[in-house]
Parts: sequence; structure tokens; C-alpha cells
Amino acid sequence: MNIVVWNEYRHEKKDLEVAEIYPNGIHGTIAAFLQEDYENVKTATLDEPEHGLTDEVLANTDVLIWWGHLAHDEVSDEVVEKVKHRVLEGMGLIVLHSAHFSKIFKTLMGTGCDLKWREAGDKERLWVVDPTHPITEGIGQYIELEQEEMYGEHFDIPAPDELIFIGWFSGGEVFRSGATFKRGKGKIFYFQPGHETHPTYHHKDIQQVIKNGVRWAASINTPTPTYGNHKALEQI
Amino acid sequence: MNIVVWNEYRHEKKDLEVAEIYPNGIHGTIAAFLQEDYENVKTATLDEPEHGLTDEVLANTDVLIWWGHLAHDEVSDEVVEKVKHRVLEGMGLIVLHSAHFSKIFKTLMGTGCDLKWREAGDKERLWVVDPTHPITEGIGQYIELEQEEMYGEHFDIPAPDELIFIGWFSGGEVFRSGATFKRGKGKIFYFQPGHETHPTYHHKDIQQVIKNGVRWAASINTPTPTYGNHKALEQI
Amino acid sequence: MNIVVWNEYRHEKKDLEVAEIYPNGIHGTIAAFLQEDYENVKTATLDEPEHGLTDEVLANTDVLIWWGHLAHDEVSDEVVEKVKHRVLEGMGLIVLHSAHFSKIFKTLMGTGCDLKWREAGDKERLWVVDPTHPITEGIGQYIELEQEEMYGEHFDIPAPDELIFIGWFSGGEVFRSGATFKRGKGKIFYFQPGHETHPTYHHKDIQQVIKNGVRWAASINTPTPTYGNHKALEQI
Amino acid sequence: MNIVVWNEYRHEKKDLEVAEIYPNGIHGTIAAFLQEDYENVKTATLDEPEHGLTDEVLANTDVLIWWGHLAHDEVSDEVVEKVKHRVLEGMGLIVLHSAHFSKIFKTLMGTGCDLKWREAGDKERLWVVDPTHPITEGIGQYIELEQEEMYGEHFDIPAPDELIFIGWFSGGEVFRSGATFKRGKGKIFYFQPGHETHPTYHHKDIQQVIKNGVRWAASINTPTPTYGNHKALEQI
Repeated sequence: MNIVVWNEYRHEKKDLEVAEIYPNGIHGTIAAFLQEDYENVKTATLDEPEHGLTDEVLANTDVLIWWGHLAHDEVSDEVVEKVKHRVLEGMGLIVLHSAHFSKIFKTLMGTGCDLKWREAGDKERLWVVDPTHPITEGIGQYIELEQEEMYGEHFDIPAPDELIFIGWFSGGEVFRSGATFKRGKGKIFYFQPGHETHPTYHHKDIQQVIKNGVRWAASINTPTPTYGNHKALEQI
Repeated sequence: MNIVVWNEYRHEKKDLEVAEIYPNGIHGTIAAFLQEDYENVKTATLDEPEHGLTDEVLANTDVLIWWGHLAHDEVSDEVVEKVKHRVLEGMGLIVLHSAHFSKIFKTLMGTGCDLKWREAGDKERLWVVDPTHPITEGIGQYIELEQEEMYGEHFDIPAPDELIFIGWFSGGEVFRSGATFKRGKGKIFYFQPGHETHPTYHHKDIQQVIKNGVRWAASINTPTPTYGNHKALEQI
Repeated sequence: MNIVVWNEYRHEKKDLEVAEIYPNGIHGTIAAFLQEDYENVKTATLDEPEHGLTDEVLANTDVLIWWGHLAHDEVSDEVVEKVKHRVLEGMGLIVLHSAHFSKIFKTLMGTGCDLKWREAGDKERLWVVDPTHPITEGIGQYIELEQEEMYGEHFDIPAPDELIFIGWFSGGEVFRSGATFKRGKGKIFYFQPGHETHPTYHHKDIQQVIKNGVRWAASINTPTPTYGNHKALEQI
Repeated sequence: MNIVVWNEYRHEKKDLEVAEIYPNGIHGTIAAFLQEDYENVKTATLDEPEHGLTDEVLANTDVLIWWGHLAHDEVSDEVVEKVKHRVLEGMGLIVLHSAHFSKIFKTLMGTGCDLKWREAGDKERLWVVDPTHPITEGIGQYIELEQEEMYGEHFDIPAPDELIFIGWFSGGEVFRSGATFKRGKGKIFYFQPGHETHPTYHHKDIQQVIKNGVRWAASINTPTPTYGNHKALEQI
């Protein structure tokens, strides 16, 4: 399985507080813990040519992880279109935190993907509401984060195919924090935690959920539909 | 309630067979039967300025019905964006037949919306699979169409919020022929029958389903979410 | 439309605190506000013959509202079976608060319907997560209850057909507080607020939601499926 | 992974036509092909003590496969209750064909589970409508069965969590032929083909789907919720 961790990689370069938490970039931290479970983990970032997502890279990617925040608009529409094409072909996609507003997530959802937010160090507690789901393997009934950016409802997404986590915030809000969607042959997992000024991706349970998400979303050998003009299979 | 029936209105002008079935256009036929139940029904077509969908028209529309086929590409991106905005604000949308490939449906679904098709006069039988749904009021267990264009699975849409009809075709295929989706504050109903060379929109049950769909999709006084920065409701 | 409000009616008789909040019983309060919108509202209670739910009453009920807590086991299996039969035939059912553990709700869900709870006067805030839904007409983005019994996840129900409200509790929990389910031709709405020692059913927004729920759940003239041996509609 | 294939095992003993197709019983055929992929596959049948489903057997079963038809009523309520308990605890359940009317399926669904049927040798074609789903690995766009008992809509089940296959029958009906449900910590897959007088379970694609279903439904190490009185996690 080939995994690519994509990161905008801007906060880490210009904000010392973020650089201290993620000295190798958010992508570096995520790639490092994924390498504990998976062999082929690469990274790609916004400022590389074609954002590091060439046709060849995309063609060979089974699961793509996406983190972005400041520079959604700088992601080229052409690359977004290619990523969408690959998701519909079966590539898994893990959308993290502020990537709720990424072009790729919005175009796959068909909605505004807006939400309420607050950078105030709320405590968050993510409750498991679907204990059948493989994305919850190896964790407990909830995950507690001492500090996280608040994301609050209404979250303007289609009703998820599966709702896995609901987040509780100390300031009084709730959020559909872990949710899955299917598009074409592809599987998508949105996971809310991960503000750049908190050490969220160093948390063992958050890492476990992302590892599980990768396994769940990976492309598999399911049927590839044909489309267009179709001869009758029976006499009409 | 203000209803607008939008039609591409091209087949009827250039194809005698279609003109005979729909002398006032497909939109004319649909508007006429809707007027049996509703007071304010208007039409709009592609070749009108702004496709007949000015800001004022859209702002005052509670349910928009959409039929298109040959000229999806001629619909301006700007108008599509405005229609999408209104759907997310709460305007109902009924998407008919070949409008599965319209820009507005594809952008709201986030998928390719492709399917198998065949113009061969298959018999179709639409079975009700959700007998709780108000869209099925006043019809029987199935609707039978002596001839209809075949649309076959896989239909490349997200899993519908509600699956209401499954179509059986004599040539051996099936189709998710009636399905609902929610996007933002808006409700969407896709309904597959309606090939231009068959008198589908003259069929009483098909008319009933579209009348029901309008009632179901109409915008209502539900909460309008606020988004963006949000002050804590509790002490953090 | 005929509405029946069913209540166990035990707390109010033996607990002075509850009797002061609901001098005519919880059913009396609910019936009174429903009568503001609906003409035919009756009540029925556990200690009446057949719990007030005779064949004739049930046959003429379009929506049944259910509140129970202490005495779920005293509800006869025969009456539960009759109520279930009517729900599958199309009668709407509104299940309130502690009725999550009622026989009728458990048999319709197929699960244990268990949850976490705490009687400690938590503040609750119910957030609307489906702003398309008619059950949310006329309310704001959330409903705030100064004090309510805490109900917390995991709530052991099937994934709802629609999730409308998520509850936030000051003690740190969340709950799927408003959810809909379809069974047979019947529609079911579970709504969590309503602990007997708090004046929840005197709250205007809670009343509005229950009024809306009644309208949404009411039986309508949808197709009645036939079952069993079925002759071929086509030559095999 | 421990798999148990449960069969009523009556048709095969008294009907020569069935015995010729399944000389070791339907359970024997299913167990045999599962053993190609899985190590620990056992069988159990109705006429064994406790129907072969002792507490010990159930406690050690990860996936249970269920085929029944003539003798649903002879399955003891006590065993059904134990099986249900294990499903809610996380045991996977594969429900085949006429087991739509088994006590265990009906109690987990909460509905009547009725349908239309006809033993007339219809051709069936099962179309994949969810090409993301691991249950469809290794098969094509559809599975064709030269002869199968017709099962037709309306199928009185809750709306499935996932709809994977839709069946087309030559006599003019359709059916939701492959569908998944979650209950408690357990995953359930209903799969319609398998009438006893046809060699359905000898068909390679049908075998592949059941093998896939087992892998998908198998219990995994997800969180076990606690229920009941719960102390506040935050100061109220």
C-alpha cells in the first residue's frame, strides 16, 4: 500500500510555536507514525512542483492524507481535479482538521463545508458513537484532548455515510468530528482534530485513528463500473 | 409557494417526434399539471437571458425543477453557481431524467453522475422501496411505463439519504430511479423517468410523484446556521 | 389527525416534586400544548384497562407519543405487539426521554437501547445538525435547557435514518438527542429531553419540536405493500 | 477467526432434489468453500442439542452464518436471545436467503421482514450498486444466476446502512439483495440468493461474496461501551 501525506507546510515555516511542535512539518510527524505500521509512506507539499502530486505519484497512491489551512486557494484547480479523479477511481482520502475548507473536500462534498470555530484552547472530548467501525480499533470510549481549536455545528456537509465520532467542547459546542463518505469507488474519512498550535498529532489515540483510517480507506479490488451506451442483456 | 420549471427546450424545437408529444415543451407540460395543485408555477428556459434564472427569479423560487440533455455545457457556470447557492440556502431542487448530467446536479453530488443508457424502448417498472415517504402518496406499489430509455447501474452518485424507487428494465438492468439528497438547507429529489421521445410526463403517476416531490422539497422555516468565529457559550 | 399521548403516570402520583411541575401529569401538559395546534388530542395511561390502548383507540390513532420510566415491565407484551403492528402499518410514534428503554422502542430498534445517565442537573444544549428537517421549523440553532438529566453516548441504537439534534452536557458528554427511524410504513422520532423533575415540557422550543414531530410522523396515504406469493408480471 | 455455518438442515433430508445438489447439506457446501480461505470453520444444525449453539460455541464464534426456511419456529427463543446478545457484543452475522424470516433476523431488524416470492425459476441478475464495498472484491459488475427463487419488493426491512446489490428478476421484480446493518457492536450482512432447489452456493461469485462478507463482519477490537450511571467528567 502506498500512502502520501500532503501538507500545505506554511505554518511550520513562519510560526515558531508551530515549528517547535512539528519540527519536520505536520506531514513529517504524520508520516513518521504511519511508518510504524506501513512500509511505503511518502510526503508531498504545496510548494513542490505540481504540489508534489504528479500524475505518476497520484497513479501509485492508495491513500492520500490532506492537511491545509492558510493556502487552500493556492492549490491549483488542475491538481484538485486530478485528485478528485483518483478518489472516484478508488484512492482513499483522509481529510484532516482545517482541510474541511480545502478545494478537494468541498468539491467532493458538494456543500459549503463551513462551521463555527474558536482558537481558545477548549478542551475536547471525542466520543465514539459507532463501536462497530474499524476506525475505532484499539482506542477507548473517547479520546480527550487538553486543548484543541473548537469546531462547532452546524457543519455544512452532506449527512455522512457513517458518523463515528462526536466532539464535545468545553465552551459549549458539539461537532461531527469523525465521519465517512463514499464517492465513486473512493472512500473518504474526515477527522477534525489537528490545530497547528497544539500537539494533537503526537497523541497516541489520534495516531491510532489515522492509522486505522488509512487501512479502512485503502483502495481494493472491487468492480470497476462501465458507463455509457449498453446493449440489452435480455430480449426487450 | 413559488415553483419554476426549467427546461433546456431544444429537442422540442428541432425534433418533430418530441414536438408532437410536448407541443408546449416539456416545461409546458410539467407546469400545466403542477398548476392543478399549485398557484404560482412559472417556466424558464436555456435561451432566455440568464437562462430565465435572474437573481430576482431565484430569490423568489421555493422549488426549482430541472430538465436538460443536449446542452448541459451551454448553461453558464455563473448561473449554476447561483442555483447552487440558493439550494444551499434552502430552495428545493427536482432533477429529472437526463439532468443527472447537468452541471448543477454534478456539483451538488461531488461525483461523476454517470450511468448506463440505451434508447431501445425498454419497458420500465418503478418499484416503491420506501412506503413511508410522502413522495409516494397516492400511487400504488409500482409505476409501469410501456417505453422508457434504459438507465442502468452503476449510477455514480453518493449513497442517497433516502432511496424511494428502484427501476426494473426489460433489457435486464436496474436503477436507483428515485432518490433524495440534502445539501445545506436544501432538499434534492432525483427522478429518472422522462425521455423526450416517450410521453412519460403525461403519465398520471409520474405527475403525482413530481407534485409530491415539490411539496416535500419546498423550503421551510428551519434554522439558518451561522458560521465563522464563535464566542464560547460556557467558561472554558 | 388523531393524536394519543401515552404516559406511565406514576412519578406524578407519588413524587411531590414531579406533581408540582406536572399537576395534570406529563401527558396532560403535552396534550395541552398539542391542542394549540391539533384538534383531536387524547391521552392514555398505564393503569387504564389495556393501558388505554384498546384496538379501537389504536386503529384510530395517527400519531402516538410515549413517555415511560419506572414501569416499562408492567406494559403488557400484548399491547406492545399491537402498537408495533400499528407502527408498521403507518402510525407515527414519538418516543420521549426515558422511553428509550420502553418495550416498544427496543423491539422496533432491535438493539439494547442502553446509554449513560446522571441525575445531577447538567445544563444541556441541543444543537441542530440537520437544518433541512421539518422537525426543526421555528426554532433557532440550538435549544438550551438549564437543567436536564444527562444521557450520554454510546446510545445503543441502530444508526438513525436522520440525525437532527446532538446534545451537549456540561458534565462532558454528548448524545444523539433527536433522531428518526423508519419501520414498515411507520415513522419514529426519538427525542431525548424530558426528565420528570425538570420543567422541560413547559419549554416553548421543546413544545415546538414535539409539535413538528407529530406533523412529520403522521400517517399518510402511501402505498400499502402486498407480500407473499406473487405471479410473474412478465413472461419468464 | 472462528466461523460457524448454521443450517436448519431439513430440506436436504427429505427432498431428493435438494439432497442431490447439497449431499452434505447446504452448511456442508458453505463450510467447504469457506475452508479454502479460513482455518476454523465449523457447522451447527437445528436438530443438534441447543441447535449446536451452546454458550461455549457462541462465545468463541466471530462470524455466524444462518440458513433456515421450513422450521424457523422450531428455533428456541432462548437460543435466539443468546445469538442476539452475541451479535450486540460484536459477533458478525451473515443471513442467507429464506433466513429473512428467521427469528434472529426479525428481532434484530424490528420489522416484519416480509417480501414477495415465487418459485418459478426466474433468471436473476445481481447488480453491484456500491463499488467501494469490500464485500464486492473480486467479482464483476453483476452476478448472473440462471435460476433463482424470485424475492421482490417491498422488502420490509429498515433502510440498510449500506445497499450493495440490487437483484433484477426476469418476471419483472427487483430486490435489495445485498444489504448491511449494524446492531450494537455487531455487523450483519443479508444476502438474498440461495434457494435450496438451485445450485446457487456452488456458484463461484456467490461463494466469493460470502467469503468477503465473513471478512467484513468479523468481530474486531473496537471499544466496548459502558452503560448506566456515569460520573461527570467535568465540574457541572
